[in-house]
Amino acid sequence: MTLKIARRGQIPPFLAMDFLRAAARREAQGAHVCHLEVGQPASGLPPAALAELGKTLATERMGYTVAQGIEPLRHALADMYDTVYGVSVDPERIVLTCGSSGGFVLAILAAFEPGDRVGITCPGYPAYRHMLSALGCEPVPIRVDARTGYRLTAAALEAVDPPLDGLIVASPANPTGTVIPGPEMQAIMTVCDARGIRLISDEIYHGLTYADPATTVAGLSPNPIVVNSFSKFYCMTGWRLGWVVAPAELLRPMECLAQNLYISPPTLSQHAGILALRHRADFDVLRETYARNRALLSAALPELGIRHFAPADGAFYLYADVSDITSDSLAFCERMLEETGVATTPGLDFDDGEGSRFVRFSFCTTTAEIEEAVRRLKAWL
Amino acid sequence: MTLKIARRGQIPPFLAMDFLRAAARREAQGAHVCHLEVGQPASGLPPAALAELGKTLATERMGYTVAQGIEPLRHALADMYDTVYGVSVDPERIVLTCGSSGGFVLAILAAFEPGDRVGITCPGYPAYRHMLSALGCEPVPIRVDARTGYRLTAAALEAVDPPLDGLIVASPANPTGTVIPGPEMQAIMTVCDARGIRLISDEIYHGLTYADPATTVAGLSPNPIVVNSFSKFYCMTGWRLGWVVAPAELLRPMECLAQNLYISPPTLSQHAGILALRHRADFDVLRETYARNRALLSAALPELGIRHFAPADGAFYLYADVSDITSDSLAFCERMLEETGVATTPGLDFDDGEGSRFVRFSFCTTTAEIEEAVRRLKAWL
Repeated sequence: MTLKIARRGQIPPFLAMDFLRAAARREAQGAHVCHLEVGQPASGLPPAALAELGKTLATERMGYTVAQGIEPLRHALADMYDTVYGVSVDPERIVLTCGSSGGFVLAILAAFEPGDRVGITCPGYPAYRHMLSALGCEPVPIRVDARTGYRLTAAALEAVDPPLDGLIVASPANPTGTVIPGPEMQAIMTVCDARGIRLISDEIYHGLTYADPATTVAGLSPNPIVVNSFSKFYCMTGWRLGWVVAPAELLRPMECLAQNLYISPPTLSQHAGILALRHRADFDVLRETYARNRALLSAALPELGIRHFAPADGAFYLYADVSDITSDSLAFCERMLEETGVATTPGLDFDDGEGSRFVRFSFCTTTAEIEEAVRRLKAWL
Repeated sequence: MTLKIARRGQIPPFLAMDFLRAAARREAQGAHVCHLEVGQPASGLPPAALAELGKTLATERMGYTVAQGIEPLRHALADMYDTVYGVSVDPERIVLTCGSSGGFVLAILAAFEPGDRVGITCPGYPAYRHMLSALGCEPVPIRVDARTGYRLTAAALEAVDPPLDGLIVASPANPTGTVIPGPEMQAIMTVCDARGIRLISDEIYHGLTYADPATTVAGLSPNPIVVNSFSKFYCMTGWRLGWVVAPAELLRPMECLAQNLYISPPTLSQHAGILALRHRADFDVLRETYARNRALLSAALPELGIRHFAPADGAFYLYADVSDITSDSLAFCERMLEETGVATTPGLDFDDGEGSRFVRFSFCTTTAEIEEAVRRLKAWL
């Protein structure tokens, strides 16, 4: 008897990961690839942290931890909220997760029923809509574009009809890098609280802003779920460690879900997280590299005939309108990788409507790599 | 406005993890706890593997990997299937996951629709029914008890009415340690294939058998999903690394789900996995310790008035009928931890009906710890 494939399991690929895979294949064949496809910082943990972690590896038993994560790390994170934002967060409200991805799965299952309508910006991080679909919710796209500076506004949220059960918002955003100003974020939070919309705030690009710092909703209301991670600012992508600041009433459900769906986050990664927080200054300086790469790429793209992109006030992406060159950014990105070894991500990943006009360039790699990519693209286009 | 807590998110706790947490609190207060509550081997990676891993930590960039996991590890696993079972598995069919838990989430989402009926043995690993519920499936308990040696049979599976869409089976099983003989497993597989029941075979306790070795369904049919992990046999609980052998038609859905729900398994853990497979002989000898602990505990329990337990031919648990002592195993386990510092897991975790008559004793800790636990229990009971 033929067995079925579940419809809910047939979500689209995360194209950035497909391009990472294609790039890895090229590299395995000996080619050099400029990695502008994934949001993966070129740096890692500082040497001092790595040395200390080596000792932990040699001496600590790497057993399960409690599902919520080890206490010293939760306390260190609470201290970080105090120092960086001036916001007081009870360490008991912090749940360590397997990457921010793990946090989203917990948040969606704890906060939303099947069929619930959850707003997401379009363009936006593709895994939001794919996770929501796989977990039975209805992702409701709220379009943001050049006219609104690619930013969600409280007015746009209020205009959604029928009303939403939830909202996922990221500031700085992926793929656009746009930052929602503090007062506007407060206005969005107020709409959510007034209308019973559970806000999930993706704060994974916090610390990576080039003008005003981003606002954490943890300081605005007791209701939202904050999702964050060590992957971006702390350059710990492969360690798969994130965290959630949960509203009090969702803590126990999230803990039980974590126990059953994950057991606990990776133990050595939790120790690495403590060290990363201790070495925060080392990561702060990386912003200068990203700012340099951003300036370099922003200057080069117009010379390549790519004149319009979202105002990247944060994160490390330029989301560029390539419609002057192509109307099929997927084929364009594939050809670019094939012919120049420059890997990027087609806009379709972030916007299944207008995305064929856009390409996301990630600039968190080294400056030399960005320069090399620009050189290759100039010769190619 | 008050915000809701999703009903589907309100799954019961994994009591073993709650007891781990209670035990950790006691330890934080300076008490010594004998850990017979979680299935967490006392050993870890052998020193030679740890030393090599230290070098990897110092030199390798810990970036994302492809979602399916790194190729050398998938090849090493395929070699293991060849060597250990004499079964040929295409490395392309292997998906590395964040623990076996991550594998179950992928398997359930890829294979089952909301509302699908999925059989599980009762008693059984609690996360099966909790994950199924959280992900919208209906867990259908199939009772196994002393009369059938606590083993699922093809006949019991055939008797389920209305028919099942799926089945999760573990051999060796948790909490009972029972092993399904090869011919019976083949009969179960045949029923599944004939009736279109997607089998998920949890093989996490493979390698841990005290009589006949366990049968992998990977060698029996192209249809089942095999879930396995480095946590138990390879003593890598805190590394959160598992794998799935997927049927060809579920590979791409599972890859896309993994990209969106996990990104990739922890990178250093994947390197550790390669080393663990290379040092398989070091783990093989641990079986002698478990066998000794099993003999010790099997001899001691009757002296404590606990005369009946499942035939633990595998895994590292004794699932004991404590009804001669108490009719409330939850309170009994709480009191035991409180008054003796011996942590165990109440049967309710594995069986919400009859579980109040049972306690699970895990014996994968050191022999000294088992001896100490027995000493304390003898003084207490």
